[in-house]
Amino acid sequence: MDNFTYQNGTKILFGRGTETEVGVETKKHSSKVLLHTGMGSIKRTGLFDAVVSSLEKAGVAWVELAGAQPNPRLSLVHKGIQMCREQKLDFILAVGGGSVIDSAKAIAAGVPYQGDVWDFFVGKAKVTSALPVGTVLTIPAAGSETSGSTVVTNEDGNYKKGLTSEEFLRPVFSILNPELTKTLPVYETAVGAADIMSHVFERYFTNSQNVDFSDRLCEAVLKGVIRNLPLVLAKPQDYDARAELMWLGTQAHSDLIGMGRVGDWATHDIEHELSGIYDVPHGAGLAVMFPAWMKFNLNHDLDRFCQLAVRVWNLEMDHKNPKKTALEGIAKLQGFWASCGLATSLEKLGIHDNRYAEMAEKATGKGKRKLGNFVKLEQKDVVSIYELASEKGASLGATR
Amino acid sequence: MDNFTYQNGTKILFGRGTETEVGVETKKHSSKVLLHTGMGSIKRTGLFDAVVSSLEKAGVAWVELAGAQPNPRLSLVHKGIQMCREQKLDFILAVGGGSVIDSAKAIAAGVPYQGDVWDFFVGKAKVTSALPVGTVLTIPAAGSETSGSTVVTNEDGNYKKGLTSEEFLRPVFSILNPELTKTLPVYETAVGAADIMSHVFERYFTNSQNVDFSDRLCEAVLKGVIRNLPLVLAKPQDYDARAELMWLGTQAHSDLIGMGRVGDWATHDIEHELSGIYDVPHGAGLAVMFPAWMKFNLNHDLDRFCQLAVRVWNLEMDHKNPKKTALEGIAKLQGFWASCGLATSLEKLGIHDNRYAEMAEKATGKGKRKLGNFVKLEQKDVVSIYELASEKGASLGATR
Repeated sequence: MDNFTYQNGTKILFGRGTETEVGVETKKHSSKVLLHTGMGSIKRTGLFDAVVSSLEKAGVAWVELAGAQPNPRLSLVHKGIQMCREQKLDFILAVGGGSVIDSAKAIAAGVPYQGDVWDFFVGKAKVTSALPVGTVLTIPAAGSETSGSTVVTNEDGNYKKGLTSEEFLRPVFSILNPELTKTLPVYETAVGAADIMSHVFERYFTNSQNVDFSDRLCEAVLKGVIRNLPLVLAKPQDYDARAELMWLGTQAHSDLIGMGRVGDWATHDIEHELSGIYDVPHGAGLAVMFPAWMKFNLNHDLDRFCQLAVRVWNLEMDHKNPKKTALEGIAKLQGFWASCGLATSLEKLGIHDNRYAEMAEKATGKGKRKLGNFVKLEQKDVVSIYELASEKGASLGATR
Repeated sequence: MDNFTYQNGTKILFGRGTETEVGVETKKHSSKVLLHTGMGSIKRTGLFDAVVSSLEKAGVAWVELAGAQPNPRLSLVHKGIQMCREQKLDFILAVGGGSVIDSAKAIAAGVPYQGDVWDFFVGKAKVTSALPVGTVLTIPAAGSETSGSTVVTNEDGNYKKGLTSEEFLRPVFSILNPELTKTLPVYETAVGAADIMSHVFERYFTNSQNVDFSDRLCEAVLKGVIRNLPLVLAKPQDYDARAELMWLGTQAHSDLIGMGRVGDWATHDIEHELSGIYDVPHGAGLAVMFPAWMKFNLNHDLDRFCQLAVRVWNLEMDHKNPKKTALEGIAKLQGFWASCGLATSLEKLGIHDNRYAEMAEKATGKGKRKLGNFVKLEQKDVVSIYELASEKGASLGATR
């Protein structure tokens, strides 16, 4: 196990009706907040009114900034920063999914910073303070509700970049009411679940040795999704399965399951280029790219792929042919995602042109940067992984 | 899943050499601290010198209060409170195992309170503030390093009582260096591991429904102990297995694995009477009492006992005879603990007299209080469980 430091102090209020506590929780931090929202669904469901009512009851004034969209845009972040400065708002309350929360975190980091907030994303500056952020979550997926991470798209060049500050960007509280997710369409639910599983895979595939317990934690999250996602898709009103999925989404990315091990994260980088250019949902892109990444890296640590296949997919180990078992595990994952309505190739995702070389160049900074840790991927490897994710490439099997 | 609130902001510094960071971490909170220690082992190992050197380097003055012993005593807590008040110490640094940390928490709660700190333990008063506590852990067992709980023995009547304040009694930081546990004798290591597993069982046995993911988290901790404890006993210098055990001990009691479910905790109450009177190690007492508790309550939810047997002990389910599978699971647990050198009956623990009725009366407050939640135990049930834990009783099997 590697040395690590872990601190995640986000206060979680979980369960039925918890959104009514948002006013009291917010008031502990601020009396005038930026209420950051998304594309309007919370107004149709009544959540917006419930939040506003709770805030007003607690004596918290609010100014709304709506419009955060999937793959949240830098221009809206800039607007939020300006609003906070001009109107002296000292807290961001994000009500929505991961995109709204990510956008809120970027605003929070940008307000006290003199330069352009994008500096943080390109590594020109480091976050040393931020406004506090609270959240009311509506989509289990990104895990942004307790993480210190945010991902924003700079429209000027379609650059999608991540930023992490565990000290300053973890929300101070997050309210998770599974009832709020009952209206989430099944496709979006499945896309979110693919994101959740991918957050686990990014940690599961590690070269760190003696990580027995964290392997088990990762497997617990995966088994949870595998059991509960089909229940939700079959019966979207199933509170219990919705609740499991919501809590799984948080724990997949709270960092606990990854302590003591180095994660990979290449697939997130590879997918970011996809959703940056084609604006596909992040989770849908991951569901296409992860099996391709797995096939490409299969031989790097066959034991680990077999462990996943046996423990998570309940496959019987073929001791004479471990590669067969490992590949069966990947096939199980693809079959599971397909059965949940997710695309299994770039083409099925609606991507028919071949910009693989361009995306690989962008992801690797013109080849200057290798991606991932489990295996350090060069620019040409990334091209191969995009190819493996295409229908033609998939038929070729593992190539490394 | 039940509604819940969760917040655990303890900063964990985990790994080799982390005790050298104690000065810098402490200095963030205080410049003059009560350095609370145990029975002297840290002086023999050199840890005391390392901690003092780190504190002094960071400019932190310290006053030592040594002598916290297993089943920490109220009289020492009183002394610590007095020292903090008289010498204006505003932080407690606990260096040792769970008993030192529990003692430190009681001191921390007592300092700002006008009355007797014992009031908190008997429910006469509620903790509304406490000094901050930091810890350097030397024994993986109690999980006190991130919990909001403390257990103290009042020598006046041998009352052992617990107190929980998640808001005020969680340590602000805990330093976990597995190297520090390499000198821990194998018996104490096994006793600690029984405590860790018991913390999981207390949460595992619940009537809360639809707790799929938290079941898996509980099982992950149990599997981790089952794999790593024998490795440590065979090779006490095995850093990797020591590291797993240390992190398992923390997570067994950080509360995360129990979120959304009501725990039981009767066995802890039942054991507290044992170690209160006979001064046996808490974990050793639990290893005797838990199988007895399990047998007594087997029929309350046979499915849950079977799930434990199948998933954790890898037993094959006997679908025609689930009770057989459930009992085999309990036998596996007893066999595991016995193979690790733990006593399997009250007699083997050195308890030959029969004070079962007296202990049951004390544990239930003369029968006024029922113990536990999974099954609400009356005074006579508690007597039966003590009997089941004796050699004669064990031969009788389940009685409920």
